[in-house]
Amino acid sequence: MRVQVIHGPNLNLLGSREPEIYGSQTLADIDAKLSELGAELGTQVVAMQSNLEGEIVGAIQAASGAFEGILINPGGYTHTSVAIRDALIASALPSVEVHLSNTYAREAFRRHSLIADVVIGRIVGFGASSYTLGLRALIEAIRGR
Amino acid sequence: MRVQVIHGPNLNLLGSREPEIYGSQTLADIDAKLSELGAELGTQVVAMQSNLEGEIVGAIQAASGAFEGILINPGGYTHTSVAIRDALIASALPSVEVHLSNTYAREAFRRHSLIADVVIGRIVGFGASSYTLGLRALIEAIRGR
Amino acid sequence: MRVQVIHGPNLNLLGSREPEIYGSQTLADIDAKLSELGAELGTQVVAMQSNLEGEIVGAIQAASGAFEGILINPGGYTHTSVAIRDALIASALPSVEVHLSNTYAREAFRRHSLIADVVIGRIVGFGASSYTLGLRALIEAIRGR
Amino acid sequence: MRVQVIHGPNLNLLGSREPEIYGSQTLADIDAKLSELGAELGTQVVAMQSNLEGEIVGAIQAASGAFEGILINPGGYTHTSVAIRDALIASALPSVEVHLSNTYAREAFRRHSLIADVVIGRIVGFGASSYTLGLRALIEAIRGR
Amino acid sequence: MRVQVIHGPNLNLLGSREPEIYGSQTLADIDAKLSELGAELGTQVVAMQSNLEGEIVGAIQAASGAFEGILINPGGYTHTSVAIRDALIASALPSVEVHLSNTYAREAFRRHSLIADVVIGRIVGFGASSYTLGLRALIEAIRGR
Amino acid sequence: MRVQVIHGPNLNLLGSREPEIYGSQTLADIDAKLSELGAELGTQVVAMQSNLEGEIVGAIQAASGAFEGILINPGGYTHTSVAIRDALIASALPSVEVHLSNTYAREAFRRHSLIADVVIGRIVGFGASSYTLGLRALIEAIRGR
Amino acid sequence: MRVQVIHGPNLNLLGSREPEIYGSQTLADIDAKLSELGAELGTQVVAMQSNLEGEIVGAIQAASGAFEGILINPGGYTHTSVAIRDALIASALPSVEVHLSNTYAREAFRRHSLIADVVIGRIVGFGASSYTLGLRALIEAIRGR
Amino acid sequence: MRVQVIHGPNLNLLGSREPEIYGSQTLADIDAKLSELGAELGTQVVAMQSNLEGEIVGAIQAASGAFEGILINPGGYTHTSVAIRDALIASALPSVEVHLSNTYAREAFRRHSLIADVVIGRIVGFGASSYTLGLRALIEAIRGR
Amino acid sequence: MRVQVIHGPNLNLLGSREPEIYGSQTLADIDAKLSELGAELGTQVVAMQSNLEGEIVGAIQAASGAFEGILINPGGYTHTSVAIRDALIASALPSVEVHLSNTYAREAFRRHSLIADVVIGRIVGFGASSYTLGLRALIEAIRGR
Amino acid sequence: MRVQVIHGPNLNLLGSREPEIYGSQTLADIDAKLSELGAELGTQVVAMQSNLEGEIVGAIQAASGAFEGILINPGGYTHTSVAIRDALIASALPSVEVHLSNTYAREAFRRHSLIADVVIGRIVGFGASSYTLGLRALIEAIRGR
Amino acid sequence: MRVQVIHGPNLNLLGSREPEIYGSQTLADIDAKLSELGAELGTQVVAMQSNLEGEIVGAIQAASGAFEGILINPGGYTHTSVAIRDALIASALPSVEVHLSNTYAREAFRRHSLIADVVIGRIVGFGASSYTLGLRALIEAIRGR
Amino acid sequence: MRVQVIHGPNLNLLGSREPEIYGSQTLADIDAKLSELGAELGTQVVAMQSNLEGEIVGAIQAASGAFEGILINPGGYTHTSVAIRDALIASALPSVEVHLSNTYAREAFRRHSLIADVVIGRIVGFGASSYTLGLRALIEAIRGR
Repeated sequence: MRVQVIHGPNLNLLGSREPEIYGSQTLADIDAKLSELGAELGTQVVAMQSNLEGEIVGAIQAASGAFEGILINPGGYTHTSVAIRDALIASALPSVEVHLSNTYAREAFRRHSLIADVVIGRIVGFGASSYTLGLRALIEAIRGR
Repeated sequence: MRVQVIHGPNLNLLGSREPEIYGSQTLADIDAKLSELGAELGTQVVAMQSNLEGEIVGAIQAASGAFEGILINPGGYTHTSVAIRDALIASALPSVEVHLSNTYAREAFRRHSLIADVVIGRIVGFGASSYTLGLRALIEAIRGR
Repeated sequence: MRVQVIHGPNLNLLGSREPEIYGSQTLADIDAKLSELGAELGTQVVAMQSNLEGEIVGAIQAASGAFEGILINPGGYTHTSVAIRDALIASALPSVEVHLSNTYAREAFRRHSLIADVVIGRIVGFGASSYTLGLRALIEAIRGR
Repeated sequence: MRVQVIHGPNLNLLGSREPEIYGSQTLADIDAKLSELGAELGTQVVAMQSNLEGEIVGAIQAASGAFEGILINPGGYTHTSVAIRDALIASALPSVEVHLSNTYAREAFRRHSLIADVVIGRIVGFGASSYTLGLRALIEAIRGR
Repeated sequence: MRVQVIHGPNLNLLGSREPEIYGSQTLADIDAKLSELGAELGTQVVAMQSNLEGEIVGAIQAASGAFEGILINPGGYTHTSVAIRDALIASALPSVEVHLSNTYAREAFRRHSLIADVVIGRIVGFGASSYTLGLRALIEAIRGR
Repeated sequence: MRVQVIHGPNLNLLGSREPEIYGSQTLADIDAKLSELGAELGTQVVAMQSNLEGEIVGAIQAASGAFEGILINPGGYTHTSVAIRDALIASALPSVEVHLSNTYAREAFRRHSLIADVVIGRIVGFGASSYTLGLRALIEAIRGR
Repeated sequence: MRVQVIHGPNLNLLGSREPEIYGSQTLADIDAKLSELGAELGTQVVAMQSNLEGEIVGAIQAASGAFEGILINPGGYTHTSVAIRDALIASALPSVEVHLSNTYAREAFRRHSLIADVVIGRIVGFGASSYTLGLRALIEAIRGR
Repeated sequence: MRVQVIHGPNLNLLGSREPEIYGSQTLADIDAKLSELGAELGTQVVAMQSNLEGEIVGAIQAASGAFEGILINPGGYTHTSVAIRDALIASALPSVEVHLSNTYAREAFRRHSLIADVVIGRIVGFGASSYTLGLRALIEAIRGR
Repeated sequence: MRVQVIHGPNLNLLGSREPEIYGSQTLADIDAKLSELGAELGTQVVAMQSNLEGEIVGAIQAASGAFEGILINPGGYTHTSVAIRDALIASALPSVEVHLSNTYAREAFRRHSLIADVVIGRIVGFGASSYTLGLRALIEAIRGR
Repeated sequence: MRVQVIHGPNLNLLGSREPEIYGSQTLADIDAKLSELGAELGTQVVAMQSNLEGEIVGAIQAASGAFEGILINPGGYTHTSVAIRDALIASALPSVEVHLSNTYAREAFRRHSLIADVVIGRIVGFGASSYTLGLRALIEAIRGR
Repeated sequence: MRVQVIHGPNLNLLGSREPEIYGSQTLADIDAKLSELGAELGTQVVAMQSNLEGEIVGAIQAASGAFEGILINPGGYTHTSVAIRDALIASALPSVEVHLSNTYAREAFRRHSLIADVVIGRIVGFGASSYTLGLRALIEAIRGR
Repeated sequence: MRVQVIHGPNLNLLGSREPEIYGSQTLADIDAKLSELGAELGTQVVAMQSNLEGEIVGAIQAASGAFEGILINPGGYTHTSVAIRDALIASALPSVEVHLSNTYAREAFRRHSLIADVVIGRIVGFGASSYTLGLRALIEAIRGR
């Protein structure tokens, strides 16, 4: 099984960016953990990060056929991108949305996600663990189909 | 370590209630899985279910001192109970909110949770797995304190 | 045929509570009329009243299997209870919602019912007759299935 | 006693129009049932239907003096007509509002009625039976005055 | 004269719960102060606390006839309970609403009270003194009738 | 000079309809007063009343070329008719909007007028005098062009 | 009979201020016309203008006892002053609200008046004639009491 | 094939009414063009215009069985008529909505159409060409069924 | 100890203004009572009243240094004055907000106070007693600092 | 004449993406049809597609001077892109907005377009024909200038 | 050249009032800096401060003819004063709005300014420098006319 | 000192794009002026422009460490980009937001900025001078730290 991990804008800064909110692990740390957990669960994990909405759209489109599922943290595009929503629907792949911080305990606009109703489910607020929990959830869901 | 699991109203019907939304496992099945996973992770798991908002408030109050964390699915009270929110804040225990179904893909009023910003995080949409993922997240968070 | 009648909070006060709005009949009077009409229409009518949201949830759950339909006046919980809504959906029983007073001619918040779209229909504003009309409607609907 | 029944726009199509929502009875069937029930309850029932808001206003105005009450299904004008509301108030006749379908389980704009607070009560969702229940309610209300 | 004091959900935790918001006095301390002040003002004060909305409804119903007035802090039910509002109206007793913390300086949803317009008045923000001021106000109001 | 007076739905009931709100003068009384005042001010006044939105639209269309101005009380259509608004704009005639009752002291929906910004001005709340004041205003405005 | 005319902020600029909206007459011109019309109708007219909300409140208070009615154009305070509203209610004098420009054809916030429902009626959009029409309406209303 | 063209209120004024918005062609010009294009595309085009909402409802009802599709510009009723919406649904005919002017570049209330989601599609802003494009679209859609 | 009492607009009318809402005591009566109670509690009470928002701002500014606390009823400025709010924050004095009438049982706009979250607390609805209760609360709060 | 066709994000998936909504034609099919129709109407058609908002902005900027008009389907950016709106305004080229699906019959957020009021007109809901109709409309509009 | 500087309510407290928000400079310091910069740029700067909305209105009116531009910080009146807005429009002078603190990072109501669209521009958040930057901007704008 | 200047989408068109709104200077003119002023104030100014949201995010990320501050005009992304907001927060650099036109005097959606509360301050409406004023403000703020 293969899973595409997609990190949205500013997530390349993890570790240095507001560590009191996002924790001190870097994106490479997270990707390593995901690979390790993936290996443990019999799944190859491929990660990409982009600050461009359109590149994320492209990565989702490309995942169709090449991967069995998508694990996505759309970052700031969570709240504004219809294009990413449309790409996820079009891909017809099972996907899981994760967030590092508890978006409900921050600015009001972070409560709204444009993809929440087109993913299988959401995992929010557990720092880097949101990703590993999300990977478990995604693999289980793919296997349960 | 001890964790209190709280199931809100109508969750006693699991297995028979709208299986296309909530799955075919019973609450006993879920509680058994949680105990098993808890044991594996060195944690005793105690579960309760109630249809009464006030009893859930009471269970949260009682957890203070007796448990190290709370795993809660407030069911229909998620969207309306300030009393449960206040009890969670007063308990000062780390807590995780879980939901079986993807509440974002249902009626609009299910998008709003009155406890979302006072728990550590939320896991939504993975059926019975929301609970096991939630227990993992909670235990990890308690250990990380 | 058997029908469960459920009276919500404060309806135990009927007859003494604001008679200019709710009329001078007591809840016992109404239950007697419903039994009489039920007998006439070949239906056994069982009534319960509770001030506790969770007890009403419980009564709805218990009705499944024991009754063919539910006649419900959720009183003040009409406007706020997702738990009662969820119980009605889970019961999968045909149900009819009734109100004594014209809720549209009172405070604005009384215009909104959380169960209106999950019952067969609603009868509002005819005092004690809302119940007898509702029982007729319910029995007819059950027979028409 | 005499009662004016008023059917709003598109109700002339009953029987052929969306039978899964509105049932298979024609308007003539309903009017016949109402006459029969009226006769049983000692009341003459006169029915009219119009697609024109102004004609419905006129019919309500004409009912004053000639009838003791009005049974009205304003159809699509329910949600938009201040003129019908004003006519009902001006008529000073007791009136009952009925709807065939459960308007709460359809588009959001159908939840709002401009006449709900100026009629005695409302009966919604029971198909053709909404009318017969409404006639019972109206006659009882007139007699109770 | 006799006055019923009603404490809503979580108020049993006073003293230990978030003392920076709610102060360090326990509920027993407050009840003792109220009894003392009541005695001074020739009034017997009886207090109850419940986490259950329906029990509070019941206590209000029971107060009718047995007490001359109600002093109530509905806690988290302030913002959501139509049932408590209805019970207060039905009781026809003069009542005073009190809150320990300044509800206007906290979450936005705490600004709205469902009983504010059916009580005589409100006292908000003075910690335990909200209760003693409220008792003074209530007794004076009862005497002024 | 010639002025078209247009009375909207239910205004034919004046004198008998809710006299405490609309006064005891009939529409004929008002039209007679307007003719008299018109004569005094050198203006022929022609009045029409209709309960049909489309007929009012037609009357406004017909006024173009035949009259120098329009005095209109759209009654219940004030708050809902884009068609009347469009007809007034298309007519390119100066027009004045009048209301018998103070629409601001009634239901909230009566505060909004769909034609308020396309007439010269509005006169609201002076009973039958709203019409005579409106006629004065209209004639003065036509002369001032 | 004596009538108090009150001009709100910036009306002292009339004649020079935005003549395309407010016309070329000065406030003195308008006051002279009002005196003349008042004399014709047997009424003494006294006018004041102030840019200070509190002075307008004071003038309304002082009118009680000294005048039989108030003709008021609150200018910019129309949309924001609860204090002027309260003063008008307290004065218990019949009052008429006038505006020079058509407030409905300008910024959206000008559509809302805080005094509209406590005056007898409103005259809006006829330039200086709004005042003379308003004086006629006010005198007629006082005489009709 | 036969297509019913329906023109709503005020469209009879085309050519003379606000030509800077609606163009200089008359309704007869447009109907002639539609007939010509219809002939070219093998379709008989029958047009009607009415200022009355109820007549338009009637025309839609009558089209069922007699025509294969409806081309409609509901004019001012676009934004307010549930009755026309209901008639279009009941007709079960494919329909296309057209507007002469760009309704999005005008008053805010013109952005909302009550029929937009029950027609096949909409063509807005191309003057008389909106009709010819609409006829092409409708015929193509009917043929594609 | 010294406390500044500030009465907002129209409160100079107390006793004559709408006695059914505001009671029959004059402002002088209330000030006398406050002085008396202040003396009893070892506090000098100085009162001022103004109809001008800016003068109230000035009085609050002047209180800093000269008084230990402020007891304020901002009257109509409660709902609209950011300037008074800013002055209270700038003064850094403990302050208590009082209202004679139950502002929650009147017009909707009276529910909102611009100073509610910057005062210690609010006392609303007890007539003249709101002031004496407020003085007690304020003195206790100052002493408790 | 030269026309720039711009396809927004995810439109490169046409044919495979949700064919029940978007039809089975590929983007190449549509571009070929547009070229063919353009040739027939004497117009060269150049098409581009991008998933990047900024590239679409760039294409619009580049069209100025090189093309006489723009035919655009902004896909998911329709509802969120101020940058595309600004580019269209800056280009000063006539443009037409098209959509394949009926955006009014889908999620509520698809009803709002940020460019609707700056294009000539919109064609929505006719599948691939939206493009050909749009090209006709655009060419006619350019020629009519 | 002469410029009128206007400081709104509570700005007389600068230096002592919440220095963490507004800085430690007094109003006299700021006025001195403005005079100095004005001298440097060939402009006489005259400053006034008032807590009274009406006095600020008066100062703006008086500026017409005596000054070439207005530099204004309306303080708390920014968010509520239509009267100041009207005075600025009436003055027809170029004006610049400045604020010491970043009003966007404070309470939500401070985001809205009633004068923002009638001034040339706004400078917000730079402490005392907002004034000097504003004076530069104003002088440049006057010269550029 | 080094400052990064960031120009958002469509700003590359300055000089030719809507000169009545944005002025006739090109972006090169503005950048030259900023360099000159920077030199005068001892600061090196580096400018970039992009139409891509993600590139702007990248430029902000890159500024951290290389520059002491950011001067940004996000153009159309001002109102929609959470990603740019997040990048600015993550950069932890002082930043100033500028706009050429008065965004408050244009479409309503331009009043809202997603970065307003995370920059030091904003300068809006002074054309090219917004940039030079902004550079002064930024340098002063950096020095004042």
